[in-house]
Amino acid sequence: MTHPNDPTLRSFIGVDPASDFPIQNLPYGVFSAKDGLAPRVGVAIGDHVLDLWQLEQDGRLDVGELGVFAAPMLNPFMALGPKVWARIRARISELLRHDNPELRDDAGLRLRALVPTADVKLHLPIAVAGYTDFYSSKEHATNVGTMFRDKTNPLLPNWLHIPIGYNGRSSTVVVSGTKVRRPRGQLKPPNVEVPSFGPCKRLDFELEMGVVIGQPSPMGEMLTEQQAEEMIFGFVLLNDWSARDIQQWEYVPLGPFQAKAFATSISPWIVTREALQPFRVHGPAQHPTPLPYLRQAAANNYDMVLDVDLRTAQMNEPQNICRTNFKYMYWSSVQQLVHHASSGCAMNVGDLLGSGTISGPDKHERGSLLEISWNGSEPIELPGGEKRTFLEDGDSLVMRGWCQGEGYRIGFGEVEGTIVAAE
Amino acid sequence: MTHPNDPTLRSFIGVDPASDFPIQNLPYGVFSAKDGLAPRVGVAIGDHVLDLWQLEQDGRLDVGELGVFAAPMLNPFMALGPKVWARIRARISELLRHDNPELRDDAGLRLRALVPTADVKLHLPIAVAGYTDFYSSKEHATNVGTMFRDKTNPLLPNWLHIPIGYNGRSSTVVVSGTKVRRPRGQLKPPNVEVPSFGPCKRLDFELEMGVVIGQPSPMGEMLTEQQAEEMIFGFVLLNDWSARDIQQWEYVPLGPFQAKAFATSISPWIVTREALQPFRVHGPAQHPTPLPYLRQAAANNYDMVLDVDLRTAQMNEPQNICRTNFKYMYWSSVQQLVHHASSGCAMNVGDLLGSGTISGPDKHERGSLLEISWNGSEPIELPGGEKRTFLEDGDSLVMRGWCQGEGYRIGFGEVEGTIVAAE
Repeated sequence: MTHPNDPTLRSFIGVDPASDFPIQNLPYGVFSAKDGLAPRVGVAIGDHVLDLWQLEQDGRLDVGELGVFAAPMLNPFMALGPKVWARIRARISELLRHDNPELRDDAGLRLRALVPTADVKLHLPIAVAGYTDFYSSKEHATNVGTMFRDKTNPLLPNWLHIPIGYNGRSSTVVVSGTKVRRPRGQLKPPNVEVPSFGPCKRLDFELEMGVVIGQPSPMGEMLTEQQAEEMIFGFVLLNDWSARDIQQWEYVPLGPFQAKAFATSISPWIVTREALQPFRVHGPAQHPTPLPYLRQAAANNYDMVLDVDLRTAQMNEPQNICRTNFKYMYWSSVQQLVHHASSGCAMNVGDLLGSGTISGPDKHERGSLLEISWNGSEPIELPGGEKRTFLEDGDSLVMRGWCQGEGYRIGFGEVEGTIVAAE
Repeated sequence: MTHPNDPTLRSFIGVDPASDFPIQNLPYGVFSAKDGLAPRVGVAIGDHVLDLWQLEQDGRLDVGELGVFAAPMLNPFMALGPKVWARIRARISELLRHDNPELRDDAGLRLRALVPTADVKLHLPIAVAGYTDFYSSKEHATNVGTMFRDKTNPLLPNWLHIPIGYNGRSSTVVVSGTKVRRPRGQLKPPNVEVPSFGPCKRLDFELEMGVVIGQPSPMGEMLTEQQAEEMIFGFVLLNDWSARDIQQWEYVPLGPFQAKAFATSISPWIVTREALQPFRVHGPAQHPTPLPYLRQAAANNYDMVLDVDLRTAQMNEPQNICRTNFKYMYWSSVQQLVHHASSGCAMNVGDLLGSGTISGPDKHERGSLLEISWNGSEPIELPGGEKRTFLEDGDSLVMRGWCQGEGYRIGFGEVEGTIVAAE
């Protein structure tokens, strides 16, 4: 059988070559349609959503356990493990092939199981168990260290040894399109004696990828590179909204808390690890050599283009403010996961690991306004004459990402968030 | 009807005056018995567990929703809200009164619904949604600051303004009695050039109380003092196991991660906020006055004795190494919760908030070995001649807590953990 990643595969559903969702992708999400049925599991194909529950009802797809595709989250499916993930993806690919009549020629099933994306609502695709945020781009850490610490020695001593991360707040992970209310918090600019409480004045985004963990690991046990790899179900775009002024006052000594707790947005489609296989690349050379538990043999980075567009309430068209690449990451997702479990920390199905802000070496590759505006000192000039150092109410931020194949792309769609005023 | 907190109430079940679980307490837990039934909700009374599911089956208790007491966690019950919590507690109190024949004189029901504690297994009482750990004892923060920062100025500038906290790892919250494996991690003592990976050498406990959140709050909204108060279902003893050497190397700039991720132990019984009402006291005066959103009118601290015992593998009897009081806490649980939601952070049923290490002004009131041994410089001498600065394999740590009434106590039982060697 042809592998679902084969670039020559075609679907009977017409898919634009510029679409994020060709038959080689098949990302999973949770959707609801106008039929009034509860949110359930679907797969994106071109500008349609394939309803896996309908396929199952029709006897065309057998996941081996009841209710998995009728669930309003992917956790039950993910819990079934990598062999089932591969089998189901292969079967979906088969069902969508241009030369397979099963679905193609069954007009009734097509009507039930293929819903135009324009007619669906996309939901948060997973119940987020734990949300962890890393800090693994060397360019980002260097930019931050240069601004706030020491130009000549911007990286902290532990940075080159540890994939630095912290636990975030899973209760406010939301799906693309959810409005983000400007947070309030304690603010104490350096030139003021006492803090005040009010709306954040330095609201920022952080361009990240999110890793979705699909298999658990037991408390008290470490992971090998391969075990970690196999626990990864897929990836989403992730915007780690950040209140820079709240963060600055609160974060010593226990790290960011309310500065990051108000919202984290993710894209609705989870692109599987399997679909991304053709785009694996080695990451940057690591000096000093990591400790043995963190060494990796495989190419665990991905050549993935990442775009950030900003549109203010006054603008008709969005403006691109960053284009970078996931391949720059110093610490890979696999290394992050191995480190996460290294103390004996149990990992759960539905854990979400943010990569950390993804910046690249060039100025236009900076993945946050903090870096783009160099801590507010270099405002962006926008078409129409507006300027931005940080986000203002009404601003809409869109992130996109894709891996470019020959004549097709494995894309993520987008994660969008619009800022609304503090109450 | 007599209020369930009335000190004159007596149960037909004989309860020792020194018991933690008189009829005025009625803490909730999850237990399983030798009957082979699945874990379900019970209440401690003396040295028995009252099986709420059996009472419900028998028509003696009506919570108004199916399956709540058959669940292996208290989350569904907590989700029903404070009015139901009060009604059910009053009804359980009524059923256990010495002068109520309903249960007392029904031998068959007594047999089904009252299980000797010696015959049950106690489980983790909640599905922990998010685990957050605070740092709210001024004595503890002062001790730590004196050791590591500046004797003359031990508190960081934000400490008197913010109930400092960070997100912990909910996946490794375990119930009392669970063995704790010594974590491994990156260690880099100050006198060494590069880090190594190996078993933690400075393993510590932290004496804390855990607040169990029983009601949600929506994303984007703040809480008043009273709203926060009403979301609190109850309290547990909490041991925030800490790997001091891992922490020291990893925690700048994003806070503790693997140093705290390997285990957090809690007591199996949740003592309700309602049962603790008679023991409310005002906390220490707060100077400077907190910002308006953090001001509190009510007495939100509790006069609660807290004990820590250590027993090494060689010792026959445990040795008390700390006796302190929850009333010392500078920031109350209500202030912690108000701050937690202040950025718009949604709170969920089952969230667990650690108070932070509870230390008092006296030397014997220090709630961690870091403080007791003053960073390892003053070892504890134990009966039998052993010494301890930090925990060794085979050491067992027991925390107990209670509020002392006239002739009765509202107690928590204990949270125990024994250290086993890293693999």
